[in-house]
Amino acid sequence: MEFPVYVVLPAAGSGERMGINQPKQFCHILGLPLIIYTIECFERLPWITRIFVVISLEKMNYMQRILNESDFQKVELVEGDSTRHRSIRNGVNAICNPDDNEQADMEKGVVIIHDAVRPFVDEDTLRKLTLAASEFGASGAIRPLVSTTVAADEDGFLDHTLVRSKYRASHTPQAFSYPIIKTAYEKISEDNLDFGTECLHLAQEYCQVKAKLIEAPDDVWKVTYRRDLYAAEALLKEKRVFPCLVGFDDNRLVKSIQSHLAEKSLRCSSVHWLTSTPKHINSIAIMVEGEENVQDQANEALNWLEEHATDGGCLIMILLMKCPPNMEKLHQIAHTLSNQSKGSAINVSILVLEEKTYYMGAVERIGSLVTTLMFDRLSAFSGQLFVV
Amino acid sequence: MEFPVYVVLPAAGSGERMGINQPKQFCHILGLPLIIYTIECFERLPWITRIFVVISLEKMNYMQRILNESDFQKVELVEGDSTRHRSIRNGVNAICNPDDNEQADMEKGVVIIHDAVRPFVDEDTLRKLTLAASEFGASGAIRPLVSTTVAADEDGFLDHTLVRSKYRASHTPQAFSYPIIKTAYEKISEDNLDFGTECLHLAQEYCQVKAKLIEAPDDVWKVTYRRDLYAAEALLKEKRVFPCLVGFDDNRLVKSIQSHLAEKSLRCSSVHWLTSTPKHINSIAIMVEGEENVQDQANEALNWLEEHATDGGCLIMILLMKCPPNMEKLHQIAHTLSNQSKGSAINVSILVLEEKTYYMGAVERIGSLVTTLMFDRLSAFSGQLFVV
Repeated sequence: MEFPVYVVLPAAGSGERMGINQPKQFCHILGLPLIIYTIECFERLPWITRIFVVISLEKMNYMQRILNESDFQKVELVEGDSTRHRSIRNGVNAICNPDDNEQADMEKGVVIIHDAVRPFVDEDTLRKLTLAASEFGASGAIRPLVSTTVAADEDGFLDHTLVRSKYRASHTPQAFSYPIIKTAYEKISEDNLDFGTECLHLAQEYCQVKAKLIEAPDDVWKVTYRRDLYAAEALLKEKRVFPCLVGFDDNRLVKSIQSHLAEKSLRCSSVHWLTSTPKHINSIAIMVEGEENVQDQANEALNWLEEHATDGGCLIMILLMKCPPNMEKLHQIAHTLSNQSKGSAINVSILVLEEKTYYMGAVERIGSLVTTLMFDRLSAFSGQLFVV
Repeated sequence: MEFPVYVVLPAAGSGERMGINQPKQFCHILGLPLIIYTIECFERLPWITRIFVVISLEKMNYMQRILNESDFQKVELVEGDSTRHRSIRNGVNAICNPDDNEQADMEKGVVIIHDAVRPFVDEDTLRKLTLAASEFGASGAIRPLVSTTVAADEDGFLDHTLVRSKYRASHTPQAFSYPIIKTAYEKISEDNLDFGTECLHLAQEYCQVKAKLIEAPDDVWKVTYRRDLYAAEALLKEKRVFPCLVGFDDNRLVKSIQSHLAEKSLRCSSVHWLTSTPKHINSIAIMVEGEENVQDQANEALNWLEEHATDGGCLIMILLMKCPPNMEKLHQIAHTLSNQSKGSAINVSILVLEEKTYYMGAVERIGSLVTTLMFDRLSAFSGQLFVV
């Protein structure tokens, strides 16, 4: 971008829709508050200049502590206020203090406004919105309506149904040229400050700017209800898992595992193929018949993972046994592998199942175990022998 | 109810919004297709007379097989058609063949129309809708709008913003008096059959009946995107877990566990209190200091669970050690407990952590392990010793 791009993230709300005590932007997912994942969406983009996170006074210390533990370079905290518009106004006003080399360009700058509870926003959408705001003054992300919108009469009966195709749901991110959003918040009425929620409406009412509407992917979805935290957690786990299934002949099992992995898992027929596997793979499941070659194959895969999956990962050996397994020997193997992987961030687990059990319908169970081990990546599961 | 209540569940759609191959109503969750959970919401209510599930021709055999494995008494399969309205019409027409003792009441009957992909609908909402349909001819569930609804002009710019408070999102279930919905589908135009989706609109257009709108809880939410499958799975798991935390002094740990358990977990200070615990408890986590009393406390809890948690459950012993644990002894205890619980559906796991590790921030890890063990209830985890 040839102009500065600022982000305002209002996060001073209380999240009363969740049915939980915590404002949802601070709910922990995989050990970090949700808002961190949202900030990360902007922090990592080189064309984003600064990020203003608007926080309520009582959360200010907490948020500062979290930020101190992160590597974020662009984030500034701004004190929030009692309503969404009042908080965003504080964020927009905080932009006024630019670096020397920003000063000249500031009037050409763009302000992106986004919700702290939409942690999956993608670069493409942000780029389109920013360019549209620079050209037209304002822009907003829209999605098709999932439900029909209806209007009720005074007595609570259906008055009329909106034609679904004529309307869209307005989401964030939204973007504004800096002078437009600044002027809108200078002119805004007390009534709008207290009861309004939509920034596009302000640009229209106070600056006569019609926002360009941009169709966004579902990634802009908002964590609204408690169930959305489950979805967000699963998606974040899924995002960090890059699986490779080695030696899987059974398509039902592959399908069961893939249904949890966005169908992005690679497959290869032998562990020797790992050398030509993309380097981002970090979770390997290997299916072997009998216990003879387990140790060798596991070693080969573990070496590969230790070299490439430096952010952590897992190795799952699935042993298909024609006869009852020698448990003592398997325990020994599990123990050895666990010791070997101790220094690395790779969890090793062994699943053992007898062939006759397998064909009696263990597919769902194995699929569920494999994905739990890949997703949860709990080191407490490392070195474990699971008999299915 | 003093009249028959029929249910029509259109499930002939292809679910192309999911980004997965499978129509979402047939996606497996905890080993069963989603639609089974939805049918269960109606089957269990004594005042529901019959349930007509509308299925595409190619899924008919599959669905019949699933039904044969279930205990459902009220379900009939109806062949679907190319659009939502055509499929629902087939379902409504299938009602015409009542038992002899239904015949007289049929004209007073109510037809509930619901989506197969809304598996959490509650009895209270169904009852309200049914009574309203009986009184006013039609009724529908509504929810507040989560996003602002906007209209675009021809060039893709914001034309106007709807005042959010004046509109509602229309959901299912919806309910109709039998004569109304029957007449509506007799009079429906080809255009509506092909392009319409909203049944309330049909009652209004063809029978001049204004539907009574009923505010419903979020339970009526629809599984629309792939991420919703994660949320549905977690909620279904959560629904079957009734936890009791014994001897937990640390509120941070309780909070971490409760954040995954809808805060419904009971707490008691000692295992002896289990005798006065509600009988539906099926997942017990006990925190003990040192390894002396583990075996006794575990036995007491296990006996209790084996008696009461006949649908399965789990026992998790969390050992807080002041000094490095005697792993051999603990392995022995885990082994003994695992053998004891072998015949039952109760999984037993032991978590061991040293006190010094605990205070260094193992809270999130333990919370995550405990909820994984309670939620996933994988018997492969039973008898395992986890060193945190």
